[in-house]
Amino acid sequence: MTDLTRRSVFTGAAAAGAAVLGPIAPTPTQAATAPAGKQAPGVYRYKVGTHEITVVTDGVNIAPLADNLVTNVKKDDVKAMLAASFLDPEKFFNPYTPIVVNTGSKLVLIDTGNSEAAYNRSNGAVGQLLTNLAAADIDPKAIDMVVISHYHGDHVNGLWRADNTLAFPNAEILVPAEEHRFWMDDGEMSRAAPGRMEDLFKNNRRVFTGDVLKRLRTYEWNKEVAPGITALATRGHSWAHTSFVVASGSSKVFVQSDVTHVPFLFARNPGWHAFVDQDGPQAEATRRRVYDMLAAEKMMVQGYHYPFPGLAHVEKDGTGYRVIPAIWSPTI
Amino acid sequence: MTDLTRRSVFTGAAAAGAAVLGPIAPTPTQAATAPAGKQAPGVYRYKVGTHEITVVTDGVNIAPLADNLVTNVKKDDVKAMLAASFLDPEKFFNPYTPIVVNTGSKLVLIDTGNSEAAYNRSNGAVGQLLTNLAAADIDPKAIDMVVISHYHGDHVNGLWRADNTLAFPNAEILVPAEEHRFWMDDGEMSRAAPGRMEDLFKNNRRVFTGDVLKRLRTYEWNKEVAPGITALATRGHSWAHTSFVVASGSSKVFVQSDVTHVPFLFARNPGWHAFVDQDGPQAEATRRRVYDMLAAEKMMVQGYHYPFPGLAHVEKDGTGYRVIPAIWSPTI
Repeated sequence: MTDLTRRSVFTGAAAAGAAVLGPIAPTPTQAATAPAGKQAPGVYRYKVGTHEITVVTDGVNIAPLADNLVTNVKKDDVKAMLAASFLDPEKFFNPYTPIVVNTGSKLVLIDTGNSEAAYNRSNGAVGQLLTNLAAADIDPKAIDMVVISHYHGDHVNGLWRADNTLAFPNAEILVPAEEHRFWMDDGEMSRAAPGRMEDLFKNNRRVFTGDVLKRLRTYEWNKEVAPGITALATRGHSWAHTSFVVASGSSKVFVQSDVTHVPFLFARNPGWHAFVDQDGPQAEATRRRVYDMLAAEKMMVQGYHYPFPGLAHVEKDGTGYRVIPAIWSPTI
Repeated sequence: MTDLTRRSVFTGAAAAGAAVLGPIAPTPTQAATAPAGKQAPGVYRYKVGTHEITVVTDGVNIAPLADNLVTNVKKDDVKAMLAASFLDPEKFFNPYTPIVVNTGSKLVLIDTGNSEAAYNRSNGAVGQLLTNLAAADIDPKAIDMVVISHYHGDHVNGLWRADNTLAFPNAEILVPAEEHRFWMDDGEMSRAAPGRMEDLFKNNRRVFTGDVLKRLRTYEWNKEVAPGITALATRGHSWAHTSFVVASGSSKVFVQSDVTHVPFLFARNPGWHAFVDQDGPQAEATRRRVYDMLAAEKMMVQGYHYPFPGLAHVEKDGTGYRVIPAIWSPTI
């Protein structure tokens, strides 16, 4: 450790400073308090005009860094970027951050996390949405609408509980029309590359069935999917990946979904293509267009793979962008 | 808003994408859910080796930007820096972030926030420590030691409850020996400048009396004040302002107290002198020394006036430093 001892300028006055009080009577011995051993609930609220947004973490997956996490740069470059972000360069830290928007008339959940089954499988690391909703005093039965941004498992699997009942039994399920068509199209499925794409088709056929299909309604871009929540096309990460603007009065926030995956890699390096991007060049074009807009308009952004609570601003920095987390407000 | 509509490359395939499903049966009408109207508790936990740290916000004070907040630059420079940080340039946003360290044998609170009386006066904006400790399931009676970093009201006033009983009735109160001597010295008090310094002397004579004095013990720098918690001299912000290193096993965190006040002003601009710094040049020298060390050692830092949860790393950036918030982990 560097030298943090007092400077000589204070030495004279300080000479008399030692132990001005004698020892006090010993305090009554207390039993040692056990550590809590668990994290506090990840719940954060803010207002956008009269809309109230509750951010609820679904947890974080920590996995060994995959060789192909970024498809168009060397793994060593990714490791260096992680280290520069004060993260373990051998691991990939992937947060999931759904939000609930109370519009005043509707309680709207945007994306559903990894599911209760994933919670059980991961020993609580991911799939925390239901437990954190409970901590936020939000009853899943009170959710009026579930809005899906795109058909990847970490966004849609939470529609189902582990016992194969609906997680949000009273909610309409709103999905991007083109996204639904793509994943339900047998021709598209027959052309899917083995591996990730094939697995996604299979998972979507598993999720979008039964009671989910009965409650499903498709939505179109550039229209409100719920009061004050407008859907916008942000293609590339998936076929018809969708972002949202939540607006009320003069306030708004851009709910980017997965325009970037984790910002410490992909906002800093918008040209990096994640293996989870269905169309890397298209995802990059979307990313640059959205982030240029966010920086120019100094617009708040809420990111699904941003670390909780996921609310931030964006500034240009060199050849990329820097995501500046919003300051946590202990009141709303 | 910029153009976020779909790219022409997708247009052909997308033509068939509209409204693949018809309208579904209307959902049962639910009563609108009332907004929560309040923030979730500001509680965050992390481990340093076997020590468990619970960060507990005491709230945020938001006040009109004072003309002399920074004594050695123009107010317009401060406003520009606030705007560059995506903050209201007319206001000063001042968070208070105490921590509780469970060492395994002792439950140690470092600094006490603005007090329950301030909570009542501010309608809950500040002085939240006791309510957030309750949310964290930490009983004030279980606190074994309160460690004070320096004798400013936002760090010491919380020793007392609004009814003039001790907030932490079973705790030893550990204070920096030189700091206590300075503020209790009648000669120093007689030389205090009118205004802030005189007010601080008066406040400290009010706080450090009665039952607080009975439980008081002074500590020395470069020694452990509690298991794994070492006190370090970081003079300037106050006469004998103190920081801490919490260390366990190979892990450690630097608890900086007020080496910088809010990082978005004073880490970015280490040469700026806050009016709350008792000795501006000395505080600056300490700040540069500590921040050079934090950046060189890539050491985690916990800041009292950092936005909740206040855990970060430091990197050099231009002529100053950038504070990079640690990623929120939904598990510990």
